[in-house]
Amino acid sequence: MTAGTVLVLGADGYLGWATCLHLSAGGYQVIAADSLVRRRWDRECGTRSLIPIRSMPERVRLWQKLTGRRIAWSRLDLGDASAVADLVAQAQPEAVVHFAEQRSAPFSMIDRAHAAMTQANNVIGTLNLLFALRDHAPDTHLIKLGTMGEYGTPNIDIEEGFITINHNGRSDRLPFPMQPGSFYHLSKLHDSHNIQFCCRVWGLRATDLHQGVVYGWRTDEIDAHPGLRTRFDYDAIWGTVLNRFCVQAAVGLPLTVYGKGGQTRGFLDIRDTVACVRLALQNPPANGEYRVFNQFTEQFSVAGLAAKVSDARTAHDLKTSIVHLPNPRVEREDHYYNARHQRLLDLGLQPHYLADTLIDSVIAMTQRYGGRVDPVELEQPNVDWRRGGVPWRTPSTKQEALRPVQVLSAGANRRSGAATPSPKARLAQAR
Amino acid sequence: MTAGTVLVLGADGYLGWATCLHLSAGGYQVIAADSLVRRRWDRECGTRSLIPIRSMPERVRLWQKLTGRRIAWSRLDLGDASAVADLVAQAQPEAVVHFAEQRSAPFSMIDRAHAAMTQANNVIGTLNLLFALRDHAPDTHLIKLGTMGEYGTPNIDIEEGFITINHNGRSDRLPFPMQPGSFYHLSKLHDSHNIQFCCRVWGLRATDLHQGVVYGWRTDEIDAHPGLRTRFDYDAIWGTVLNRFCVQAAVGLPLTVYGKGGQTRGFLDIRDTVACVRLALQNPPANGEYRVFNQFTEQFSVAGLAAKVSDARTAHDLKTSIVHLPNPRVEREDHYYNARHQRLLDLGLQPHYLADTLIDSVIAMTQRYGGRVDPVELEQPNVDWRRGGVPWRTPSTKQEALRPVQVLSAGANRRSGAATPSPKARLAQAR
Repeated sequence: MTAGTVLVLGADGYLGWATCLHLSAGGYQVIAADSLVRRRWDRECGTRSLIPIRSMPERVRLWQKLTGRRIAWSRLDLGDASAVADLVAQAQPEAVVHFAEQRSAPFSMIDRAHAAMTQANNVIGTLNLLFALRDHAPDTHLIKLGTMGEYGTPNIDIEEGFITINHNGRSDRLPFPMQPGSFYHLSKLHDSHNIQFCCRVWGLRATDLHQGVVYGWRTDEIDAHPGLRTRFDYDAIWGTVLNRFCVQAAVGLPLTVYGKGGQTRGFLDIRDTVACVRLALQNPPANGEYRVFNQFTEQFSVAGLAAKVSDARTAHDLKTSIVHLPNPRVEREDHYYNARHQRLLDLGLQPHYLADTLIDSVIAMTQRYGGRVDPVELEQPNVDWRRGGVPWRTPSTKQEALRPVQVLSAGANRRSGAATPSPKARLAQAR
Repeated sequence: MTAGTVLVLGADGYLGWATCLHLSAGGYQVIAADSLVRRRWDRECGTRSLIPIRSMPERVRLWQKLTGRRIAWSRLDLGDASAVADLVAQAQPEAVVHFAEQRSAPFSMIDRAHAAMTQANNVIGTLNLLFALRDHAPDTHLIKLGTMGEYGTPNIDIEEGFITINHNGRSDRLPFPMQPGSFYHLSKLHDSHNIQFCCRVWGLRATDLHQGVVYGWRTDEIDAHPGLRTRFDYDAIWGTVLNRFCVQAAVGLPLTVYGKGGQTRGFLDIRDTVACVRLALQNPPANGEYRVFNQFTEQFSVAGLAAKVSDARTAHDLKTSIVHLPNPRVEREDHYYNARHQRLLDLGLQPHYLADTLIDSVIAMTQRYGGRVDPVELEQPNVDWRRGGVPWRTPSTKQEALRPVQVLSAGANRRSGAATPSPKARLAQAR
């Protein structure tokens, strides 16, 4: 069977770009679309990818030069409903892989405007796509990136999207009850309900990938050339926890655990993200079917992850300290967590479990780009779930940003008040 | 205890206005706010209230003249975040009663633009209100009008917002799984999740009234003067089922049941709506608490309601026919339905159960305003859940609008094709 056309929305992002390359390498005709708004948000927040990344035109040109495979690049905002409809109508894709959303929980918690923008951007953009599919490509398989964060942390086992409930002598298979933990996570839940409805009413077919926290920066395709690299975020707005820990370790700063660190989540390697998307694509649902795959390979607590990074450093005789910061989020820090993640394994996923070598690889990459690290970004985040915050940092907030509440490792620096060396000075020391 | 200030949002609507009067009569200082957008939507759809209604300034003036009680009127759009914040900050209300949403399922299903507008309007408007409460009045009790339609029709008993689930040997009390049936109902579910989150994270307190289908037009306060009347919708976009049946019966047209008519829902009298809001207000939740009350008093199937209206007419020796139309919605037409509705009864609600006298009263009112009835609005609706539609009716669609698939009563007119008398002609005959 010849692989068909796949439209990847959000193609300029961390996972969107890696997915474009993986599907192109697998023989799919990839159309890569993105509004490039994330590059604008980086300017707003004063953040940037630790790994320098090229523009989309440069990356697709390089990919074609190296492999002979063409990725069609299209600048597109999902908020532009008629442009979305035109692209879908013209492309008649076998599948649409939809990463094109504001995907930072802290960004969504900054203030009212960021909360409203996140929900409007994500929910209305996805609605625009759903109507384009209904009207122009109703057989297309929608592969939507959701999040494990839609579930929250219930005190029962988490199933994959649906649960059979027995109640007062009757039984039904119903959507799993959801308790998202930020306006961003809520936007993904709103999407999930909208998509499920459109499958039921219009006969669309969709896979909702409830993804865990992704780490790593390398895939087979990205490894082909440095110019193909995808973005790598380590800051407090866009960075995810394991990537942040590796960067902290690389520059000799303490690993910053929010609160007790008992928060347990599902995690996966970026190589498994691209494989999962491909597996969903190769095994489409029936028309009218809405299905959920929990897309992660291992569960870790935040404190457990910090210990893993610390242990990986110890293996090289390097010392890493861990500090517990006041938790800027409102979340349970000690809870039951057991989430099923069987369906992608059943389709053939071969997980890359977290190993010291991965941690070493991220740390080595970080050290290569050490000059691009802003150490302030590795401290207590500015955005608090209770009172919001600002995405950027000012000199005054920098001084008070890092307030460790507990030091676990003997080697940790206890820093507070005016006697604290500046982050820049500490970074210089660490080097 | 002196009753405090209550801000009623959506005060120009069917239930919003009735609530303003009821709370003002109860001694509350009512601030009535509305964007008046519904009057604009009426112009867009070519619909109008069967009962003529006065402007908001006229109604509040008349109320003050009759009772000496002042209702402060404010034109306000919840989309204007700073105006919302200013009003909340200034009023420091004991409670905000929030009706201010696009509330028609068919309107939300017209096309992409109406779906997106409904979700953006409702979700972002409510977010603006939530942030205003967090920042300016965190102790205010938010009383939000949700809908029983958030639950859908599960095959188990419906609880009030939460359900205890036992699963694999563990147990948790979790949000009841939801399966809304239109973009409008989905917007209410998105709101519910957002509000629940804000209670958890910010310590707000909220009552989410999952309301059934409301019928009737009179309350004790409205009865004080014809100039105080609230709107009464009977058309296919804004009208609800029992009100529509009464109008159909009044003008001698068949009662139009969608599909089999086994669709079962919760219903309540408008007098109970205003009482429920007052009971919620008088019994506020604790700070940080999010609670759900299922706000209805009786369950009926659509076919059962049609039979009740027909029976009420028979008692006066009048004959009413019932036709089953192709169902424009995608919904189960034969299903289990048993929804708990205990919490408002526990607070003291004295239900007005559906009686022939109510049906007679609505029919009598309709006959008084018979000249305002557009019979085309009482036929097969233009908006279909699968393909959308237009809110207004054109001559060509009028001709094909009514296609009965099954005639239950012997007296029903079987009408199809060119031989069908025009709706106007039939109405004239019926009179």
